[in-house]
Amino acid sequence: MQEFEIIKKYFSKLTTNNKNSLNLNDDVFFDKSKKLVISIDTYVEGTHFINFKKPDLVVKKILRSSISDLICKGVTPKYYFISGSGNKDSFSKKNLHLISKSLKNEQKKFKIKLCGGDTVFSNKLSFTITSVGFSNKIIYRNQAKINDNIYVTGYLGDSFVGLKILQKKIKLTKNLSNYFEKKYYNPTLQAQLSKKLFSFANTSIDISDGLIADLEKLINRQKLSYKIYLNDVPISNNLKKIIKLKIIKKIDSVSCGDDYQILFTANPSKSRIISNISKTLGIKISKIGKICTHSQKSQIIDEKNKKITLKNKGYSHKF
Amino acid sequence: MQEFEIIKKYFSKLTTNNKNSLNLNDDVFFDKSKKLVISIDTYVEGTHFINFKKPDLVVKKILRSSISDLICKGVTPKYYFISGSGNKDSFSKKNLHLISKSLKNEQKKFKIKLCGGDTVFSNKLSFTITSVGFSNKIIYRNQAKINDNIYVTGYLGDSFVGLKILQKKIKLTKNLSNYFEKKYYNPTLQAQLSKKLFSFANTSIDISDGLIADLEKLINRQKLSYKIYLNDVPISNNLKKIIKLKIIKKIDSVSCGDDYQILFTANPSKSRIISNISKTLGIKISKIGKICTHSQKSQIIDEKNKKITLKNKGYSHKF
Repeated sequence: MQEFEIIKKYFSKLTTNNKNSLNLNDDVFFDKSKKLVISIDTYVEGTHFINFKKPDLVVKKILRSSISDLICKGVTPKYYFISGSGNKDSFSKKNLHLISKSLKNEQKKFKIKLCGGDTVFSNKLSFTITSVGFSNKIIYRNQAKINDNIYVTGYLGDSFVGLKILQKKIKLTKNLSNYFEKKYYNPTLQAQLSKKLFSFANTSIDISDGLIADLEKLINRQKLSYKIYLNDVPISNNLKKIIKLKIIKKIDSVSCGDDYQILFTANPSKSRIISNISKTLGIKISKIGKICTHSQKSQIIDEKNKKITLKNKGYSHKF
Repeated sequence: MQEFEIIKKYFSKLTTNNKNSLNLNDDVFFDKSKKLVISIDTYVEGTHFINFKKPDLVVKKILRSSISDLICKGVTPKYYFISGSGNKDSFSKKNLHLISKSLKNEQKKFKIKLCGGDTVFSNKLSFTITSVGFSNKIIYRNQAKINDNIYVTGYLGDSFVGLKILQKKIKLTKNLSNYFEKKYYNPTLQAQLSKKLFSFANTSIDISDGLIADLEKLINRQKLSYKIYLNDVPISNNLKKIIKLKIIKKIDSVSCGDDYQILFTANPSKSRIISNISKTLGIKISKIGKICTHSQKSQIIDEKNKKITLKNKGYSHKF
């Protein structure tokens, strides 16, 4: 059973009559009356990160993953909590020093503060991160409109190649390996764009599970379909290189998530404002498709104008 | 290394200049400007609960443990989040149904709502619960004054006996076993007393680690000592019975925590108001000792007026 099915089936009824809950169908909780936005995620060794050989990089990455949930909704993260479960090796003095140093850098970069948490003993290493922000409004899921353009920020797919290299499933030159591993551990968050989203986006999500999986989550309660042009999905020059070498397919690299770029839809009338903001902030924003009626089937069109059928739409926490 | 030492040494500096953080030295986080109070705790199978044979009871207990952190600070919990890590057996349909039913009862009892969380795959079962409340003020730790009386609500020690029975370390009659097991799984929370605390308590904490351990945490940054009269520490008639049978010592039963009663100090001038509130609400509140100057050594005086030396002051998460 997949994560959101579990949540939906057994727990959504516990939130009935609670207007703040978003019916457990968003990545953040929003209490409008208190202007409070909360995101909680758990990261388990072996599932959400490979191992803990580089504790500073792992902690940096999962913290970014957590605050990304707020940033993609137009909310500035203000503080965070970390609960760590692990053994004495995971929380050795050396590791704690590295973790602390890494968190300090992230705090400076994103103007956030650690406000609590706990450490408990467990043979299995995991972290739960709670990120908190305050906002009058958020950009919800399931607010796409027919004919909306679909946009994505930055470049997709690099992080997945980094993961494959770290898993020793792909071997590249040292330079390329360094590039992709860095992209895996240092996802770029579009914090500067966050507050601007209100001026053009109808609905938004961050890409953590993969472009297609997150697009489907974004509109999962709407009677809509989408059309994505793979050619328009932005990828880095380095990723283009290894696609050319047939080491990986473009559709696979962008469907596996961990990108933390913002996926949003906007009315076509917003094209100019999006283009202007993109230029002003120096943030790449690419139009990659369109929201269509429910009568059509969702489509991904490849470089040769052929429809792609995806076997695996992205990452999900299967039980 | 113990939990609070880890937190203190490596992470307190990450919260410098953040007036809201309580320097990671309280069980809750309080953002005064936003009137927001948050408590986050992680519960691991084998450490914080024995096993998951009774998922409904385990979830009930850990939820109460979480909201207890707010209640003992004078804050009414409003909503909560649960993140569960486990395998498909832990999150089987049957278990999810039991968990959901149990949470529903707790929600009704404490007027709280589930607002989010996630479920991730892990071979090790654990839960992180985040409880949220709103308040203009909280009762802090480390605000005891010399000559304050020390009080505790309810009865202590029953839960620990229940744990020993479940661990098969103590064997009692079926009736007594049922009584203590129930006390272990159903800690009584003094939710009704919570808001009244502001009218008399200088400082407060809930007893999760044990009477002495939590008392020492309550005043850990103050140059103070305490004097506790074991005779005055309230215990149930059933616990009295098995102490008489020499199955357990009183000092051991009340030093092992999991009671979730409120431990607080108050100026002697508050005696009458405490007594009145106790009667009005029908909540047992017992004076068990006194806060003394730093020049004295902390003392626990037993039934025969002798000083007790404790080897183990209570539960702590050792690494």
